[in-house]
Parts: sequence; structure tokens; C-alpha cells
Amino acid sequence: MLETVDLDLKLNRAAYDRIFRPLRDRLSLLQRMVFEAQVPVIVVFEGWDAAGKGDCIEKLVGRIDPRGYEVHFLPKATEDEELRPFLWRFWARIPGRGDMGIFDRSWYRRILGERVEREVPRNVWQRSFDEINQFERTLADDGTLLVKFWLHISRAEQRRRFERMERSDYESFRVTGKDWKAHKRYDDYREAVEEMLERTSTPWAPWTIVAATDRRYARVKVFETLAEATQRALDAKAAATPPPRPPPSPASKSPAKRRRAPSPALAHTVLDEVDLGKKLTARQYEVELARWQKRLRELEYVCYERRAPVVVVYEGWDAAGKGGSIRRVIGGMDPRGYAVIPIAAPKGADATHHYLWRFWNKVPKAGHIAIFDRSWYGRVLVERVEGYCSEEQWRRAYHEINEFERSLHNFGAVVVKFWLHISKATQLRRFQERERIASKRYKITEEDWRNREKWDLYRTAVHDMISQTSTSYAPWTIIEAEDKNWARVRGVRTLAEAMAKRLG
Amino acid sequence: MLETVDLDLKLNRAAYDRIFRPLRDRLSLLQRMVFEAQVPVIVVFEGWDAAGKGDCIEKLVGRIDPRGYEVHFLPKATEDEELRPFLWRFWARIPGRGDMGIFDRSWYRRILGERVEREVPRNVWQRSFDEINQFERTLADDGTLLVKFWLHISRAEQRRRFERMERSDYESFRVTGKDWKAHKRYDDYREAVEEMLERTSTPWAPWTIVAATDRRYARVKVFETLAEATQRALDAKAAATPPPRPPPSPASKSPAKRRRAPSPALAHTVLDEVDLGKKLTARQYEVELARWQKRLRELEYVCYERRAPVVVVYEGWDAAGKGGSIRRVIGGMDPRGYAVIPIAAPKGADATHHYLWRFWNKVPKAGHIAIFDRSWYGRVLVERVEGYCSEEQWRRAYHEINEFERSLHNFGAVVVKFWLHISKATQLRRFQERERIASKRYKITEEDWRNREKWDLYRTAVHDMISQTSTSYAPWTIIEAEDKNWARVRGVRTLAEAMAKRLG
Repeated sequence: MLETVDLDLKLNRAAYDRIFRPLRDRLSLLQRMVFEAQVPVIVVFEGWDAAGKGDCIEKLVGRIDPRGYEVHFLPKATEDEELRPFLWRFWARIPGRGDMGIFDRSWYRRILGERVEREVPRNVWQRSFDEINQFERTLADDGTLLVKFWLHISRAEQRRRFERMERSDYESFRVTGKDWKAHKRYDDYREAVEEMLERTSTPWAPWTIVAATDRRYARVKVFETLAEATQRALDAKAAATPPPRPPPSPASKSPAKRRRAPSPALAHTVLDEVDLGKKLTARQYEVELARWQKRLRELEYVCYERRAPVVVVYEGWDAAGKGGSIRRVIGGMDPRGYAVIPIAAPKGADATHHYLWRFWNKVPKAGHIAIFDRSWYGRVLVERVEGYCSEEQWRRAYHEINEFERSLHNFGAVVVKFWLHISKATQLRRFQERERIASKRYKITEEDWRNREKWDLYRTAVHDMISQTSTSYAPWTIIEAEDKNWARVRGVRTLAEAMAKRLG
Repeated sequence: MLETVDLDLKLNRAAYDRIFRPLRDRLSLLQRMVFEAQVPVIVVFEGWDAAGKGDCIEKLVGRIDPRGYEVHFLPKATEDEELRPFLWRFWARIPGRGDMGIFDRSWYRRILGERVEREVPRNVWQRSFDEINQFERTLADDGTLLVKFWLHISRAEQRRRFERMERSDYESFRVTGKDWKAHKRYDDYREAVEEMLERTSTPWAPWTIVAATDRRYARVKVFETLAEATQRALDAKAAATPPPRPPPSPASKSPAKRRRAPSPALAHTVLDEVDLGKKLTARQYEVELARWQKRLRELEYVCYERRAPVVVVYEGWDAAGKGGSIRRVIGGMDPRGYAVIPIAAPKGADATHHYLWRFWNKVPKAGHIAIFDRSWYGRVLVERVEGYCSEEQWRRAYHEINEFERSLHNFGAVVVKFWLHISKATQLRRFQERERIASKRYKITEEDWRNREKWDLYRTAVHDMISQTSTSYAPWTIIEAEDKNWARVRGVRTLAEAMAKRLG
């Protein structure tokens, strides 16, 4: 999931000043409401050393009524704590109803530092994933709101920060040999972080990854996320509790009155980083396509021999060129080895079953390749945007989909997912072209135009989808699709490379 | 969990005839209501060969509208099915909304037959626990009702049935060499069944163990459980959906009108099997107590040396003798090694935190012994019976408690749990005695008398508690406590034996 994070995200001072103050006030109001609603809140800050956890916590508690929170900084377990199950010292510190517990590092130590530094045996940290998920589910079921942040910076940025701290008279003591040692193992830690995010991002306690290169950006992201989550928890509690009778006097004004601020649209998404200028000449296209199609045919055979199934997902904007790309993928392949599965709105039995049902039904046999032209991601795209499912349902779906794809991976499948990206202007051009050319007219409908009007809502949904479901076992590839030649070759090539990698 | 099942449970024909017909009609009505409410239902039948799965299914479908259900009998996976993840063929068969899918054997094959017969490698079946729990949770979150039965018979009963079948002209073909081979491995299978029950009995898809020695009893238990679960699912759905406007005409009588039949009291509980006649003479008591107290002191030292924590839970009827028993347990021990923790109704911080919080806080250090005089089981006893928590909360608690105790076990703890059992008459005698004797009067309160009036409700709660939370890693021991001498020695001895077993 980390690869989807744009570490260059920044907020200039002017924008920050404009956004941050109202956000801070909103959060402070929400905290009072949480107290009145007696909801316990747990906020977890994990992240790279020097990523700015301290700064975020400082800013956060600066605006909260000090009677309402406690910050827990728990370094390595003491000798006495070592004599209990590792969750013991965290259980002891969970907040009561209406309180907020802020954890500067947490129970995730077990599967980060303690794991990487081999302070606990493998079977112990492996088991901890279950114990952590159970711990968090037990609290969430009882009404606790859990918000977890991973503050992310690059290895180079971490080095810069350590060096800057070493040069400072006041901060040099904070950088130790141990920090530098951990820094050298950045890649080992990163692998552990990926697994942590994948295995413990649950519907009841999801992770939020914060790009923390820029402090202002990080603070805003943390505050916004926390405000959103708090608001949702209050709404859920209000929905579950019958509303109190209206107060007898019209003068009564409680600060706890329900207010629902509209959620701010995402200013920045993973799509913004895509370089839409990529292209191939006709000649390059021909050579490259032929080369990778040949490779794909060889690999198709290896898959068959080794009984490895392959699952390919094509998603993308309308008119981004999914159909044409899929035709190039199968262009060189043996038709006995693959199936293309087009997915439209569910009808008949598909509509009366669980949404994952028809996709499970289409799982390829071992040794075969299934190419989905649209997929189970409809749940978090069109169904989310058009309101065909509830917010609770699409939020839960990220986790369900990750579990589904993990099952496929466990079975030995190669899972490859493409998002075909074009600009809004290019989409318009292609729509108009489709309307002009008789042979293409069937491809454009009223619905396409309607979807287009919701571009920004889809953009947010795509961002959430990619950041929540890009996993080490089923990563997303965003394909630059302004130039069809480039997009087609990129698809064939990425698929071939993924297959080659898994098949050794 | 299997050891709590009384396999001698029987229903005579007269009782059966009286109970079964109305139950069948109720279930048939409920099935129509489920159809109208569009709730998908999955019923899983697992159990020993010849335990009577077929008979139950036959009786069940005999009363259901044939358009509403499908029975799935899936033997060993076909070659084609083997080429997909093991859940694939089950996903393909999940019922649509309003339908009922009845599985004669199911996805549990993977962790029963396939596991025991080593048809899949260890890491694959180990992983299946997660995949199965995720599969069931995904369906339950979407509104599917899951009801799972384990039909239980003893090894001897299975042998008798096989022999009887072999003697019959019509059934002999059903007993094969493979069946006899599996029969010989009854104990291996039983171990796998225990782990299956422990790891996949979840709040969203709990197991019901059915004592199946007597067919009539088994049928009634299956029908009753299914009717209860269906009713709960309908109630939950009705509570989540705003009620429809009242029909305009008073003549409208829909069969789908909500009816809530009172849940029948348990006719039989694990407590009924307890032999309350056990006693020790004063002389035996002295000798035995001294012997086991000495052993306990030795073991206390071994625990300390090996850094193994010990958790002892004392629960029981009021006046069953918990206090006296605990005094005998600690009588011979070194006070530096243990703590007795009395638990009363939560107050202060205990009342504003998650109910497990104060027990986590009291987890003993490695090498130490904690004896709980009443415990976290208050949630499923007094809090359930007195309505201090919601039905949803106490139902969820069985799973939460099992996870809690499993964490302790994972950490290396010995977990021993006692239920001190006396008859209702004995309780009365002891209450009266307490009122008579000045020095004991403080021990009897109005509350004791009030609790006594709810004897039958507690009896059901105790039965559910023991059957849902007696696990291989934290088993319950029911102590016959009519005779205090017997009860006291039994406690000291059971604890010593459990410690000796774990410490090797």
C-alpha cells in the first residue's frame, strides 16, 4: 500500500493557515461531543522515526480539553511487563467512555521493531496479527472508535532529518546509533510495515497512511481523518440510539448538537502523479507489442504446466481503452488458456446473491487465465458513487476484497490489476469521436455522459480504492492511457513481468 | 467443548410427539417469513459418520417449501474443483436472498477429513481457519444467517451403528473399509473437531453441538436451534428496517406478521449429569488435602522457576462454598506466589471501561498464580440474567472470552476454571443456616434470595457458558459441592494436576 503514497505532497503556508484553524476548531468541538456521547476514542500513531509523530500529537492535544485525553508513550516493555502477554500493558491503558487515549507507538511494536530485530520468535509475532485484530475488534464491538495513522517518509528523507537533528544543539541527543542502525534496515522495516498494513487494516480499525514529508500537510491529513472518523462514530451512535425528546425550551443550545460538515473533496489523489505524456511511436509499438505478446504466450504455457491460475483485472475511466487493451493481451495467447469476462450491472441470480458471488464463480482454474473487464471493484466505484450500496457496505468491501484476493494468492494465483487513466479532456474528445463515427456509436450512451458529470466523485473513489487495496500480493498498476499504443504495450508487459516474477 | 455433551440425552416417544409437531409447524412458518424478509440462510450439517445427518436433513426439508431450499451434498472435490481455491465450490452454492442452502458436509472438510488424512499440507489447512472465518463473516455481514451443527456420538455408538448397518440388507453398502478406518482414528478426528469448534465458533456463525445418540432428541435440538436462530435474524432485520406503515384494512392478515414465541427453557443441562452424592470422610479429607496441598506447593515453585503464569477461576452458585475452597487452595502455598482477586459489581473506572479491562489488569505475572473469586464470566451469568447487558453483548462475549483465554494460553498460562455445583435444596439449607448463625449472617443478603428465584435462568446461563467456553486450552471442571470436603479436595487436586500436566 505504501507505493501509492505521494511523498511530495505539500501545503503552502497560506493554504495551511486557511484550512488548519477551522479544522482545529471542528475537532475540538467534536471532542466535546464525543465526551457527551461517552464514546471512547483510541488514536494510534505509528510511523518511521523522525516522521513527525511528536509534532502531530503536540498539535492535537493542544486543542483538546486536557481532562479528556491521555498520551501514552510506551517504549520497550519493562522487565515487569515482559512477564505478561504483550497486549497486557495496552489493555491497562485503554480509555474509558468519553475519554481519548493517544498512543505514541503501540501494540504494533510486536510486528514492527520486535519482529524485525528478532526480539520475539517467528511463531509469536505471526500469532500477534490475530491477537491484535481480536483486541481491536473486541473494543470496536463495544463502541470504541479506533483511528490508526502510519506516518510515512522515504529513506532519503529520514536520513536528511537525522542529519539535521545531529547538527542541532537541542536535538542531537535524539539520534542514536540504534536509530542509524534501523535506518540502514529501512527496506526490512518497510516489508514489515506493508504486511502490518495489509493484515491489520480492518473495517473496524482501518489504517490511514499519511504522507509526512511536509509537516503542514501531515497535520492537516491527521486532523481531517480524525474529524471524519469522529463524525461517523457520532452519527452511528445517534442512529443506534433513539433520538432524545426535543428540549422543552427553545433557548436550550447544546454544543453537542449534531452537525454534519460536508466531507472535503480530496485535493490530491494517486491519479495526479500519473505522467500522461507517455507515448510510443507506431514503430516502437509494433516491435514492443510483438515482443511482449510472444513472452506472454510462453508464460501462458508455463502457467499451464505449473498449474498456476492468473487473475487480471481491467478497470478505468469510460473510454480509457479497456477493450482495446484486453484485445492486445489476448492477441498472442492460446485461446484454450484464457477467458475474458465482461462484467455489467448484476441481473438475475447475480443480483440476489452476495456481490462477491459471481466473481468467485468466475475464478479461473489452476493453469488458466481470467481477464475481468470490470470486476468486483464495481462495489467501491459505481456502487459507491451511485449509492447502490450503503456507505457501511462499501467501506467494508475494501477489507472483503483484500481477503478475497489474499485467498487467491494463497492458492497460488498471480493477481494483476490495472487502472487505465486518462484526463477529463481526453475522455471528452473520445466521447465526441464515438458519437461522430457510426461504427463506434454503440459504445457511447447517456450513462457515459452522466458518469462523466461525477468525475470528481469517481476520482475520490478511485484514490480510496487504490490506496486501500493495493497489496503486496495483489498490487494495482495505474496505466497512462492517453496514448493507446503506450497503454496497450504497458498492459501486456506488466502482466508478463508479474507472471514471470511469480513463476520464478 | 465436546466433553460437556451428555450423549445419553433421550426423548421418549410421547414427549417427542408432543414437542415435535408444533416445532415443525413453527419452522415452516419461519421459513416463509425468511423468504418474505429475503434473508439468505445457510445450514451446515457436520458430524461423525452415521451420526444421523441424513435423518435430520430429511426431516427438515420435509416441511419446507421445496422452492425455498437446496440440499448440497459435496463429497471429495472433483479433479476440476481441485483446480480452484477450496472455498470456490461452496461460494458457487451459497443461497440467494430468501433461499436456504443446506450443506450435508461442507467447507469444514478441509480441517477435518482432509486435515486428518493429510490430503493437504499443514500450512494449507492451518490457513483455512482464517479463510473459513472470513468467508462466514463476509456472508453474515451481508445479512446471511448461518447455523452450524455438529452431530456428536461416541466411538462406541458409531461402532454399534456401523455393525447394525452391515447386518442390514439395505444399508450394508453404506459402510466401507474407509469408514472403518476413520472409525479407528476416532481420537485423531476428535482432536481436529475440538480445534474446529474452538476456532470457528464465532459470534456471526456459532456452532451447535447436538447429542445425537437418540434420533428424536437430535431432531428436536436441530429444529429448536434453527427456529431460535431464524427468529433472531428476523427480529434483527425488523429492528434495522423501519417498520412498514400499518395496513389500511384491519382485515389484512399476513403470515409474515412478527411473532415471538418464548424460548423454551432448557430441559437438560450439563449440570444434570453431576453426581451430587460424592463425599469424603473427615479422615479421607485430612489425608487427601494434605497430600494435594503439598503437591501444589511444589508445583507453585516449578511455575515460578519456569515463569509460567496460572489463572484459576472460581464460579458457582451462591453458598456453594467458593470462599472455603479457595482458602484450601492457598492453604499450603507460599503467599509471595499467588493473589486472590475477589470480583464484585464494577464500580468507578471498572464501570466506564470495557468489561474485560479490569481482568486484563489483573492478569498474573509469569511465574505467579491469580485466583479469581468470580470473574469475567459475570458477563454471561449475572449480567445476562439481570439484563445488565444486551443479548447481543452476552452472545458476543463467549467468543471474546475464548479469545482472551487463548491469548493467556498462547503466552504460556495454565488456565483452570471451576463451577461449584450444589442442588437448589442444599442452597436453601445453607442460606437458612447462614441466617441462623450470627457469625455467618453477613454472608447472606436480600440479593442472594433474589438470585435464588432466578435459579432456572441461571441454570440455562451456566449450561451455555460451560458448553461455549470449555476449550482444550481452558477447560471447565464442574465440582460436586454438596459435600464441602469433597469439593475442597477436588479443587486443590484438579489445579495441581492441570499444572503438572502443562509443566510436563
